Amino acid sequence: MKKYIFMAAALLMGVSAFAQQALWGRAAVVSPEINADKTVTFRIAAPKAVKVQVTGDFLPTQKIDTPFGQFDAPGVADLKEGKDGVWEYTTPEPVAPEFYNYSFYVDGQQMVDPSNVYINRDVASLTSILYVDGETTVDLYKINDVPHGTVSKIWYHSDQEGIDRRLTVYTPAGYETSGKKYPVLYLLHGIGGDEEAWYTQGRASQILDNLIAEGKAVPMIVVMTNGNISQHAAPGEGPEGMVSPNLALPKTMDGSFEKAFPEIVKFVDKTFRTKAQKQNRAIAGLSMGGFHSCHISKQYPDMFNYVGLFSAAIAKEQGDANGIYSDFDKKLATQFSKKPALYYIAIGKTDFLYKDNQDLRAKLDANKFPYVYKETEGGHIWRNWRIYLADFTPRLFK
Amino acid sequence: MKKYIFMAAALLMGVSAFAQQALWGRAAVVSPEINADKTVTFRIAAPKAVKVQVTGDFLPTQKIDTPFGQFDAPGVADLKEGKDGVWEYTTPEPVAPEFYNYSFYVDGQQMVDPSNVYINRDVASLTSILYVDGETTVDLYKINDVPHGTVSKIWYHSDQEGIDRRLTVYTPAGYETSGKKYPVLYLLHGIGGDEEAWYTQGRASQILDNLIAEGKAVPMIVVMTNGNISQHAAPGEGPEGMVSPNLALPKTMDGSFEKAFPEIVKFVDKTFRTKAQKQNRAIAGLSMGGFHSCHISKQYPDMFNYVGLFSAAIAKEQGDANGIYSDFDKKLATQFSKKPALYYIAIGKTDFLYKDNQDLRAKLDANKFPYVYKETEGGHIWRNWRIYLADFTPRLFK
Repeated sequence: MKKYIFMAAALLMGVSAFAQQALWGRAAVVSPEINADKTVTFRIAAPKAVKVQVTGDFLPTQKIDTPFGQFDAPGVADLKEGKDGVWEYTTPEPVAPEFYNYSFYVDGQQMVDPSNVYINRDVASLTSILYVDGETTVDLYKINDVPHGTVSKIWYHSDQEGIDRRLTVYTPAGYETSGKKYPVLYLLHGIGGDEEAWYTQGRASQILDNLIAEGKAVPMIVVMTNGNISQHAAPGEGPEGMVSPNLALPKTMDGSFEKAFPEIVKFVDKTFRTKAQKQNRAIAGLSMGGFHSCHISKQYPDMFNYVGLFSAAIAKEQGDANGIYSDFDKKLATQFSKKPALYYIAIGKTDFLYKDNQDLRAKLDANKFPYVYKETEGGHIWRNWRIYLADFTPRLFK
Repeated sequence: MKKYIFMAAALLMGVSAFAQQALWGRAAVVSPEINADKTVTFRIAAPKAVKVQVTGDFLPTQKIDTPFGQFDAPGVADLKEGKDGVWEYTTPEPVAPEFYNYSFYVDGQQMVDPSNVYINRDVASLTSILYVDGETTVDLYKINDVPHGTVSKIWYHSDQEGIDRRLTVYTPAGYETSGKKYPVLYLLHGIGGDEEAWYTQGRASQILDNLIAEGKAVPMIVVMTNGNISQHAAPGEGPEGMVSPNLALPKTMDGSFEKAFPEIVKFVDKTFRTKAQKQNRAIAGLSMGGFHSCHISKQYPDMFNYVGLFSAAIAKEQGDANGIYSDFDKKLATQFSKKPALYYIAIGKTDFLYKDNQDLRAKLDANKFPYVYKETEGGHIWRNWRIYLADFTPRLFK
C-alpha cells in the first residue's frame, strides 16, 4: 500500500504548478466560512494592502449614480487586518439563506475571492459565489440526493441568421431510457445573459430536479435559449473566440429573435421526444426574456399554452422591421381569444419595471384577460427570478 | 426605434450591479491583448500596488522546491506601472500558439486577471485563460465553424458505491437524429481532475469536432468519467455542496474505480446508441487516468480494443484489496494474447514519469507485445495531453 501512497504523492507533482502552489505555496485561508450561527466570515491574505473591502448582495444595498440615474447596488463592508496579513470581516448578523455573489476590493482593485473556486460570470464580470442553505425555497437550489436530469449543450442551425447557435437543454431524470414524450418549457434570459444564465445563476436544473422529485412539478424538458440572435453562443463558447463580452449586440431587440423562434421549436421537436402541441409548451423569461416571451407568445398564438413574464420589460405599441412589435393590442386579443392555460406576471415591489407591469395588468383587467399575478419584495434580481421559476413550473402541464 | 434603444438602456440597469460596475464604474483595461506581432500584453489597474507580476505557462519555467523535491513551475515576469495606475507587461517575443493559463501577483496576492472573464478551475486554483491561435494543432482547440457535437452532463448510479455519479458525454454532430450506432472512447482525467477536466482544459469536444469535420477521426462518443470514486461529481456539482476542493479523496487509487468501471460501460451502452462490442471501445487517460486505463484494460481484457496511456503513472506489481493491481504481468499477457488493435504510449521527454514509461516499454518489447510510442518535448502538462488526444483519436475504430 505504501508504494501507492507514494505514487499518489508523486502524481500530485504532476498537477499543474498552479495547483501545486495552492497545495504547498501558502498557508490556507478559508473564505467564505459559514459559521454555526449563520454569520459569514470573509478572509483574504493581503499583507501589503492599505484597504480591503467586500461587496456583495448579502449586504444591504447602497445607491450608486449611473448615466441612467440612481440605482441600487450591493453594499460594501471593510475588512480588518489580522495576523500574518490576513484580512477578515464577519457579518454582524446571520446571513439569510440564499445564493449570493460577492467580490473583494483590495486597494480599490476588484477581484474574486482567491480562496473560493466557485464563481459566476455575469456579463463581463466575475464574482465569487456564497451559498447559505437552510430554508425550503433555497434548498431547491441545492444539488440534493434526488434523481438528476441531464444538461446538454446542443447546437441548432438558424436558417434565418445562417449560423449555428447553442442551446442549453435540461431533460428530466429518466429521459434517456423512458421512451416517453415530455412537455417543454422554453426559458429565456435577460439582457447581458446567454444560454448559460438560467443554468448557472438561475439554478434551473436544480430547481427542476428538486420540484420533480417532490412531485410538485411534472417531468419536463427545459430549453434555455440564447436571445442575442447575432451571437452563436455564450462568450468564449462560439467561433468568435475568447473575446471580451459585448453588451452592444446587434439585433438583440429588433424582433429578429422573436421572428426566428419557431426555428428553435422545430429543432427541439425534431431532436427530443417532445409532446409537440401547444398544450404541452410553455415560454417564460426574465427582464428582456420576459419581453421576448410576451412578443413570441402573441406573435405565434397557437404555439404556447403557458406564458411567464418574470420582471418583464413590457412591450408597448411600436413599429419594427420584422413586424413583431406592431399591433400589440390586437395580437394580445387574438392570443387571449385562444384561452392560454396560464398567463403569469411576477414582479418585485422595487423593480424599476414595476409601473410598466402594473400598466400591463390594467390593460389585461380592462379586457377581462385572465392572468396570475405574483408580487415579491425586492427588485430586478436573480433572487426573485429563481423564486418565480420555482413558483411557475409547478403550475405547468397539469 | 428610439423607444427601444431607451428600453435596452433601461434594461441594462437591470443587469446586476456587478455587471453595471464593469460597464460604468471604471475605465476599461484590456487584458490580455494579443498584438499583431503575436506578442501579448497583460494589464491590470492597481494604483496603490508596490509590486505586480504575471505568472503563466507562456513564460519559461523556473525550478521550485516542494516537499517532494524540485519541480518545474511557470516563470514570473514583472509588470511596470504606467499612467492611471495601470500596470503592464508585454512579452519580449511572440507567444507560440497554445492554450495557456496565467494569473497575477499583486503585492504577493495571487489573483485571476480582473479584465478577463475566461478562467479555468484547476483543482483548488483559478487561473485566467490566454489563447493564442495560428497553428494547425492549436486550431483544433478552437470552436471553428464546423458541425458541433453535443456535450451532456449525465448521472449514473454506481451500485458498488451506492451513489449517483456524474459523467460528461460528448456525442458527435448528428447523433440525435442519425439513428446510427457509434463507437465509444472512455477518457480519464489525472489526479486532482474530475469529469470536467478533459472538457475544459483538455478541449476534448473541440478536438473531436474538428478532427471529425476534417474526416481525420470517425464520429465517436466520448465518455469523460470521474475517477475519484468517492466523489459524486466535480467540486460544487454534487450534493457535497460548494466546499473547498479536496485532493485527499478516499479510495482514489485503491482499485475501487477500476473494479466498478464495467458499471459505467453498462450504463453508457444502455443509455446511448453505442456499438457495444470490444472492437468499438477505447480507453485512454492522462497521468492517474493512464494508470486507471492500464489497469482497467488488463482487468477486463475483452472490453477495450484500443488503449491510450498519456503520461501515464505506470502500475507496478502490487497487492490491493480489490485484486486489481496484483498479477500485473500475467494479466498483461492475457490482454495482449487477445491482440488489442492499439496499445498507445505517449510521454514528454522531461516528464517525471519518463523512466517508468521506458521501463514499461522494455517489458512490452521483451514480450514482443506490439504498441505505438509517441515522444514529445516538455513534461507532465496539458499541452501534451491535448496533443496526445489529437494524435490518438484518428487511430481509433478504423
